[in-house]
Amino acid sequence: MTKLQERLRTIDREICLLRHAEAVLGWDQETHLPARGVEERAEQLALLRGLIHERVTSPEVAEALAAWEEKGPPGFERGGGAGPTAAPGGDGTDGRGGPLREDTPFYGAGPGPGCGPSGPGGPSHGAVPGGSPRENLAGGTPDIQGAFYRAWERRHRRAVRLPRSLVERMAGTTARGQARWAEARRKNDFSLFLPLLEEIIVLTRETAERIGYREHPYDALLDEYEPWMTTGETDRLFSRLREHLAPLVRRIAESPVRPRPLPAACFPEAAQKAFGRKVLEAMGFPWDRGRLDRSTHPFTSSLGADDVRLTTRYDDGDFRVSFFGMVHEGGHGLYELGFGDQVRGTILGEGASLGIHESQSRIWENCIARSLPFWRGWYPALRDHFPGVFDSLPLDHFHRAVNTVEPSPIRVEADEVTYSLHIVLRFLLEKDLVTGDLPPRDLPDAWNGLSRELLGLTPKTDAQGVLQDIHWSLGAIGYFPTYALGNLYAAQFYAALRRDLPDMDDRLSRRDMAPILEWLRIHIHLPGASRTAADLVRDATGAPLDPSFFIRYLSEKYGELYGL
Amino acid sequence: MTKLQERLRTIDREICLLRHAEAVLGWDQETHLPARGVEERAEQLALLRGLIHERVTSPEVAEALAAWEEKGPPGFERGGGAGPTAAPGGDGTDGRGGPLREDTPFYGAGPGPGCGPSGPGGPSHGAVPGGSPRENLAGGTPDIQGAFYRAWERRHRRAVRLPRSLVERMAGTTARGQARWAEARRKNDFSLFLPLLEEIIVLTRETAERIGYREHPYDALLDEYEPWMTTGETDRLFSRLREHLAPLVRRIAESPVRPRPLPAACFPEAAQKAFGRKVLEAMGFPWDRGRLDRSTHPFTSSLGADDVRLTTRYDDGDFRVSFFGMVHEGGHGLYELGFGDQVRGTILGEGASLGIHESQSRIWENCIARSLPFWRGWYPALRDHFPGVFDSLPLDHFHRAVNTVEPSPIRVEADEVTYSLHIVLRFLLEKDLVTGDLPPRDLPDAWNGLSRELLGLTPKTDAQGVLQDIHWSLGAIGYFPTYALGNLYAAQFYAALRRDLPDMDDRLSRRDMAPILEWLRIHIHLPGASRTAADLVRDATGAPLDPSFFIRYLSEKYGELYGL
Repeated sequence: MTKLQERLRTIDREICLLRHAEAVLGWDQETHLPARGVEERAEQLALLRGLIHERVTSPEVAEALAAWEEKGPPGFERGGGAGPTAAPGGDGTDGRGGPLREDTPFYGAGPGPGCGPSGPGGPSHGAVPGGSPRENLAGGTPDIQGAFYRAWERRHRRAVRLPRSLVERMAGTTARGQARWAEARRKNDFSLFLPLLEEIIVLTRETAERIGYREHPYDALLDEYEPWMTTGETDRLFSRLREHLAPLVRRIAESPVRPRPLPAACFPEAAQKAFGRKVLEAMGFPWDRGRLDRSTHPFTSSLGADDVRLTTRYDDGDFRVSFFGMVHEGGHGLYELGFGDQVRGTILGEGASLGIHESQSRIWENCIARSLPFWRGWYPALRDHFPGVFDSLPLDHFHRAVNTVEPSPIRVEADEVTYSLHIVLRFLLEKDLVTGDLPPRDLPDAWNGLSRELLGLTPKTDAQGVLQDIHWSLGAIGYFPTYALGNLYAAQFYAALRRDLPDMDDRLSRRDMAPILEWLRIHIHLPGASRTAADLVRDATGAPLDPSFFIRYLSEKYGELYGL
Repeated sequence: MTKLQERLRTIDREICLLRHAEAVLGWDQETHLPARGVEERAEQLALLRGLIHERVTSPEVAEALAAWEEKGPPGFERGGGAGPTAAPGGDGTDGRGGPLREDTPFYGAGPGPGCGPSGPGGPSHGAVPGGSPRENLAGGTPDIQGAFYRAWERRHRRAVRLPRSLVERMAGTTARGQARWAEARRKNDFSLFLPLLEEIIVLTRETAERIGYREHPYDALLDEYEPWMTTGETDRLFSRLREHLAPLVRRIAESPVRPRPLPAACFPEAAQKAFGRKVLEAMGFPWDRGRLDRSTHPFTSSLGADDVRLTTRYDDGDFRVSFFGMVHEGGHGLYELGFGDQVRGTILGEGASLGIHESQSRIWENCIARSLPFWRGWYPALRDHFPGVFDSLPLDHFHRAVNTVEPSPIRVEADEVTYSLHIVLRFLLEKDLVTGDLPPRDLPDAWNGLSRELLGLTPKTDAQGVLQDIHWSLGAIGYFPTYALGNLYAAQFYAALRRDLPDMDDRLSRRDMAPILEWLRIHIHLPGASRTAADLVRDATGAPLDPSFFIRYLSEKYGELYGL
């Protein structure tokens, strides 16, 4: 290894450690921080982010990348446009950033010699995670090394392309934006948020221009969260979704079948937690490498390669809130804990994309934990944890009750069928906001119109409509699509999983979930970010991403449940 | 402010934030970290310590200090010996380090013009802590500014005087030392620890030589924890202690008075916690600026200027373990939360010395919370929290039971009277280890001999004797004396407190402790480390540190309790 390469590895490791330290501070803030500690905590976090940014944009990194570009194998892409040191300052990106490049289909088209993807679960990703991350890359196979440099090139380029002044204006505006958004939602007054939103859109458009894109400015934003995905492709996928889901929702609404509601009861928090922990354990969540805590908004965070923490919230009147939340976060957590030895602790020790990450939570939460075989195994245990509550509710009625379809104006309360339509709505609006076709002041009307069209309902208030989500106030435009992409990936993985494990239902009814985790480990988790989402999907399922899997999954499941 | 000065202020702030981030990681490790997360956490902590060290030893700091020395007021001390940039590398010191200098009595003798200490509680320290720390020093009075530079000069000089190789050898040896010490204690076999201890003593002597000292190599070590204190002065103080305490212990042992033991009972953890929190609240501990959690070894840690966390441990069979632990840590915590606006968030936002810090825990734990007036106020509440348990135990018997004197071989189980003798023992041995007069292999015999002499007992095993404490395995030689100094400071402060608050006992029996905290805030807390321990004592009590206060306090209290 040359001195420059070694230096890049050191910087890579330092960034990993700093990001984990940042995660410790963030997790603590959500779970334990005393009220008045918030102000200094923000300063502590800003300092760590600054230290990361310093490293991402350092001249040493630029040199190491330039040296690699010169000597790299033929398949290695050269960054187009501004060189790594062209623009001063920039954003402390989280490593997922990076411009969309002309050679986007690189991975899909097959890399040059020496950078070929190893077969799924091939030996290049190590067998079982858990070893020391220090020597990962020294002994990394060429494809891992190539992925390492490509990931670094992405991270570095995006950071140096965004001038510090833009990053600072965005940080300041979104800080005020969050406060103003919260106030606007509380007061149900969109006009309070509008001026900040207008500023955020202007800054977002400038960000897209700086980063660069091929066809659509939204490409540059989407690519931050879903690398290599394009606006055009998302458009095609979402049109198919819209075309099939809207009629399905209508048919369900018209069905005479109405699931019985769950019995009204008090579900003690301790019992909810105990039951959830049992299920997480059966999913394979290792308590010596993670925790489960409580927070206002559920999340999963990696505080170390062997320290992945889930949080959930509890509703005394409805065990489903905590339970499906725990399983969802458990899916994210198992992904984070499953990266192979060659990638863990490096820039590649993270999810391939946010959509793939979401697929790992959704496949557990929806495809598995809302299935009849799952509850065949777990309903008796649930009954034991809440004595008496479910006595008069037979299993099949219970199963219907946890799969009730009921259009709601609120995304986070949506069921499996309507959820993706909430996302299509946001995607259509975001695109037009970014191009300028939709002035922010017209947003509430546009929202309500689309809501009627897609979900068949109009939110009663803006608080329940256009103001419901925090994302825009954070400047996170381009993020929403990953939620629906997650559903698509999940259904396609689930179909492959059922193909590869023909006795899965039997095993599920025996609460044996080990083969499911093993399949996910091999096909999705081990490579971390060393392979693209598109590659993972193609190799695991034998086909490129195709919404038919999701549409078929929903049609079959809900056709049966609602007697369509 | 010059550019150099500004840069030093930025570095100072960054170090404060990095040390607090380090504290978050450390607190989390003791309270929440999953088992397998320990390994990476060590790497995260090492990286943060490295970032701190980089800043402490940076050439910019050396320049800023040199500029200050040139232009500083006449009273400002110039560092003797090696210049700031003379030795490469060094230790990431915690800011208390620094060589003992020839002009040690600087503070005592009165500083030159412009650096004079403001009167106790004077306006220069701000009225009530809680404001923004950012502008502290820009508007700092000259004495605070002087203290700021002196503290920095200490921190920087110590760091650059210790060569990196020495620091690394010490880190490696103590890492192995801790593991070996734990094994030796478990197996009750001193010979297992001996070779590591010998290495640690060699490295400690080298450390002392590098740092420099005036009379005794132990000076350089003690000064790390108790700035400006000398071995000679400690010798004088401890001789007085020994002279008076040993006979007092004997007289108590011979007294016919035997306190009744506390009733055997089960004390539920929840009730222990609830009672402890009530008392902490009455002491003035603010829950919006701190927390109370559980850990194996109780500690207090500052995770931010407004985020100070206490931990305690619970014994189901004895409420005293958690209760006096909480009050002790509460005393430390209130000190950390009490630094004035001009010093908080800077190098001066910490205790004046470890001895002063310990005085703040001891005055609450012993002088206040083991007093009869205190329990006059709190015994009814204690009885309410543990219904039935104390029904047949009158208040005065209860008071005796929490003040039982009983020599024990174990320091951490010692009562108020014998505790300091445990420290005298360690001080006498440490001095001789450092000079070489006591070869480490002779340590067990020396320990047992002194134990007989001072405490009247011989430990049954080395595990209960020479191997009982972790400190030496950590290389923390010079630390022990601060525990006993804390007792001396506490008693002297307590006498002044009673002098200034003549109705204190009445207030205590009404559970009104606000005036106590106010007195401590004004006389001890507000200045942080901007004033020396000696200055604090002299100004608060009107006299230099004098063991008579402690001796008189013990003689009076225990004379009465044991009818001597």
